[in-house]
This record gives sequence, C-alpha cells and structure tokens, in this order.
Amino acid sequence: MPSSDPLPSWRQGTTRQAILDFLDQADDIPVERRVAVFDNDGTLWCEKPVYVQLDFFVRELRQAVADRPDLAERPEYRAILDGDRAAVGRLGLERVAIALTELFAGLRPEEFDDRAREFVTSARHQDFGVPYHRTVYQPMIELLTVMRSRGFATFVVTGGGTEFVRAVSRQLYGVDPEGVVGTLITYELVRWGGEPVLIRTGRPVGDANEGPAKIANIQHHLGRRPILAAGNSAGDQDMLEYATAVDGPSLALLVDHDDAEREYSYASEAGTFVSAQPIRDVAQRLGWSVVSMRSDWAQVFPSS
Amino acid sequence: MPSSDPLPSWRQGTTRQAILDFLDQADDIPVERRVAVFDNDGTLWCEKPVYVQLDFFVRELRQAVADRPDLAERPEYRAILDGDRAAVGRLGLERVAIALTELFAGLRPEEFDDRAREFVTSARHQDFGVPYHRTVYQPMIELLTVMRSRGFATFVVTGGGTEFVRAVSRQLYGVDPEGVVGTLITYELVRWGGEPVLIRTGRPVGDANEGPAKIANIQHHLGRRPILAAGNSAGDQDMLEYATAVDGPSLALLVDHDDAEREYSYASEAGTFVSAQPIRDVAQRLGWSVVSMRSDWAQVFPSS
Repeated sequence: MPSSDPLPSWRQGTTRQAILDFLDQADDIPVERRVAVFDNDGTLWCEKPVYVQLDFFVRELRQAVADRPDLAERPEYRAILDGDRAAVGRLGLERVAIALTELFAGLRPEEFDDRAREFVTSARHQDFGVPYHRTVYQPMIELLTVMRSRGFATFVVTGGGTEFVRAVSRQLYGVDPEGVVGTLITYELVRWGGEPVLIRTGRPVGDANEGPAKIANIQHHLGRRPILAAGNSAGDQDMLEYATAVDGPSLALLVDHDDAEREYSYASEAGTFVSAQPIRDVAQRLGWSVVSMRSDWAQVFPSS
Repeated sequence: MPSSDPLPSWRQGTTRQAILDFLDQADDIPVERRVAVFDNDGTLWCEKPVYVQLDFFVRELRQAVADRPDLAERPEYRAILDGDRAAVGRLGLERVAIALTELFAGLRPEEFDDRAREFVTSARHQDFGVPYHRTVYQPMIELLTVMRSRGFATFVVTGGGTEFVRAVSRQLYGVDPEGVVGTLITYELVRWGGEPVLIRTGRPVGDANEGPAKIANIQHHLGRRPILAAGNSAGDQDMLEYATAVDGPSLALLVDHDDAEREYSYASEAGTFVSAQPIRDVAQRLGWSVVSMRSDWAQVFPSS
C-alpha cells in the first residue's frame, strides 16, 4: 500500500471501495452540499461496557456523595451507586438521566467543559486500560480527515450531551464545538455583580437526540442536509435513511461491532437492531454499507 | 491609504483604531477563543423602513391570497394586508408573526431556502431601488473578512428566522448555514413513499432570539463564547455585555444609525435604546465602541 494512502487502517474490500468511490463521485457536486454526519457512541468511539458519558456522570456522582453523603439517599442516585439495573428500570432511564444531569446545575459552560475534558483525557477504560481519548476508532479518524481534505464539512450527531461531546470534539475529531449536534441542556442567564453569567440548569431541552429527532436537530443546528451518514444503532436509522434519500451520490455506513477479540461483539446478532431484524438484513434492504470491525479494519484504536 | 488596507470603507478615527488594536491583541490568544458574533438586522444589513424578512413574508402573503382569497379574512393577515398597525398592536406582534410563519408550513427546508434566496437577490429595497442583497453594509463585510483572515470564527446571531438568514448567509457574509443562530421553526418528520421527509410546521421553537435568549442560544448552537460582538439595538445589549465580560481582550461594537443622508437616522435619539437612555450614554457607561455610520463609514453599501 503506498504511503499516500489516506485510509491506511481500512483493509481492501467492498466497504473501503464504496468509500473511495463515493469520494470520487462527490468531487463533482458543489462543495456546500458535501456534508457528512457521524454518530458518536459506537461509531467514532467505544461505547462498551458503558457509555463514556455515563461513566463520567457516575464518577462525578461518587465525588459529590463523598462531599454530601445525603445525596446517596435520592433513589435515582442510590440505584446508580448500587449498580441496580432493576431499580433504574423501575425509576425509568429518563428520570435517572435527568437526576444525573442535575449534578452539574449551576456550573458555567467553561467549568463543565474543563471537567469533561479532564475526564476524557485521564479516566481509563475499564477493559483496555487506556484513557478514553484513546478509545476512538482510528479508521473513522482517518475517514473524517480524508473527507475534510475532499471539501466535506464533518459533523458529530450524538444521542449524548452536546456539551460533553463538544468539550473534546476538536481534540478527538477535528470538529469544532458548533459542529456537534446532541442533546441540549437548558441554561439560565443570571447577573453576578452586574455581569451576565450563563449557568447550566438540570433540565434538558426537548427530547434526547435519537431517531427522528436527529434529523430535525441536524436541520436546526446545521441547516444542511448530509449525503454521508455513519451510525451503529437503531437510533441512527432515520439519519442514515435521510442522508441517502437525496438525488446524486450518497453513502450510509453502519458500523457492525463483530470483533470480540479487539473490541466487542454485540450488534450483528439478530434482535439487536431495528424491529428485531439482524443488522445486516436492514443494511442490505436499505442499501447501506456495513463496516465490519473484524474484517474491514486493520487497526481499531490509535497506536500509542 | 495603502491598497493593502483591509478596512478601506472605515475612516480613520477612534472606532477604526479600536478594531485594529483589538485584532492585534487577539493575535496573542488561542485561535479557538477567537470568536465573533454579529447581529443581522441593522448591524450587517439595512433594517429600515421594514425588516427584509417581514417584506418577504408580506409579499408571500399577497401571493397566497391571490391564489386563495379566503386567507385575507384571517384577522392577522387582514391587519398586515391593510398595513393596519393599530390592528397588529391589538392582535399582538407574536400572534401575527406566527400567522405569517404558518404560510410556509409544509415546505421542505430546501423549498423555503430557494424562495428566501430568490427574494433577497431579486426583490428591491423601496427607498434605494437595489435588490436587498446589496443593502448589506460594506464596512461590516470588510470587518467579517479581515476577522476571518486573523483566525476568527464569525457567526450571525439574529432575532430573525434562522432559516431565512442562513439561506443567504454564505453568499452575503461568508458564514456557513451552521454559523447562523436565530429564531428556530419546528420541523416534523413524515414518510413519503417510505422515504423520510422533513417539513416545516408553523410553530417556532421557544422564544424569539432576542435579549438574554441570544446568549443561551449562542451556547446551545455554537458552544463558544464570543470576545467580539456587534449589534445595534436593545435586543443586543445582553450579547454585547456577555462578550466583554471575559478576561483578556474583547470588543463590543454598537452601530449608531445617524446617517439620514446615506441610510437612516433613528438610533441615536434619546429613548430608542435600553431603558429610554440615549444610545451613546449606554455605550459609554459599558465601554462599548460606537460605530457612527455618518462619521466612521466612508461608504455604506457595496459599489454596484
């Protein structure tokens, strides 16, 4: 392989070829229509055994409880601290998520940013032993880079918190904070000594950024329609369909976690994707390219 | 003046010098903190005698009524068609604005874009006789350009509709659609022949993007704090204060419409700005730079 290969971590095969063909076709369309969106958890970085953001929230909760033990009496926090999945289920995931979000109420955006960035660069993945910022997928980093070099605007469209992801999006993905579309938190403007200060509340803005919400939020925040979308779960299906329902070239990439040896194997089994259909059947029916982690990627994580 | 002057339409004086000094100071701060936000109506383009977007809405209303005369019976439309300000006041501006927005319900984003773009490049300003896209302020275009050449990210933060402004923001200001923060419209995802299609509803998302809302929306959409803000009205005060309440260099620019000869004179009178204070008093108290259209600008609009 020549050293000028822009995708050295992608093995020869139909998926790699589909990407290269798409990039060649895209050279002929106006640059303002070259728009690509990427899901984050499980698409750009590892989401197992636990979402990075959830690990962050839980560690912040432990810290908060160390200072204020009474917090542990709140049922939502109790369930998390005990790792009691049944209790989380009874309370409802949304209620638990909002309770965790409330831990950060009162912070200014920069303070939250600093904590999130510090966490991602220092906290370690429990199975791989490396800091989370090294659990990004090297082939996807290469893809982001080559797409920008071909005139694409690249965006991250995540079900996670916008502020958590954008705190590290530039460092990890080369995507500026305004290029992250996720679940938003409400802010309040207060006056401290006459100066305007923006502080987080504990309330999200609208629904979580999953499924059809991803499409409306792409329009709200970016105002541009993607012609490439990459995802890995049912929450990305609408987005992938939207990206390919255009005239002209388009590409949908579905990352299949089928690599128990180097990462995890969890998505290619029947029942884990849309309407209990095997992920590859859905992809075939809708004309998507499946990215097999095991077969298509020569390397999963960045070299140390 | 040397031909390499990046601000040829700005006359020598304290305002021009404040801008150049600020740009020199900003060279020493990290590039990711070089963020500038600009109000649109009255700051980047002419807002008199009527907002461009309102003119667009009214002309679309006349077109709609030509096709469906019964529409004219709706009180909000009647008031607009008759130019009956008292009736608009009785109905409430918000109710009238929402009624006008409903004219576009059911359109896909691209359809709305096309109409808005067509309007701005062909409809003519009633006093100046040129298409609206030529009522941008040449000195502000030069400012946007020089700021980007000095590493700044430049954004438009408007009280107007996000989609209306972003339809022309690249052409007029060199700002990509995702760089426009304004008042949002709600979308609905429908399926046509199985394909996902995004269509406008008539409902706005939350409040109009004015006053404190501008700060929260800057955080939501951009996730970056500005260190330069430019505006011209009370709705920009919070944003200008926010931009200057930082450590390190910052600049707030307040455009004073004091040029009855080349544009209009309406903002420097007492009572037109915050809390009935003359605009220059507010600026002086808060340390803002006033941009006098009459004194500071050698040229107001682009040459034909």
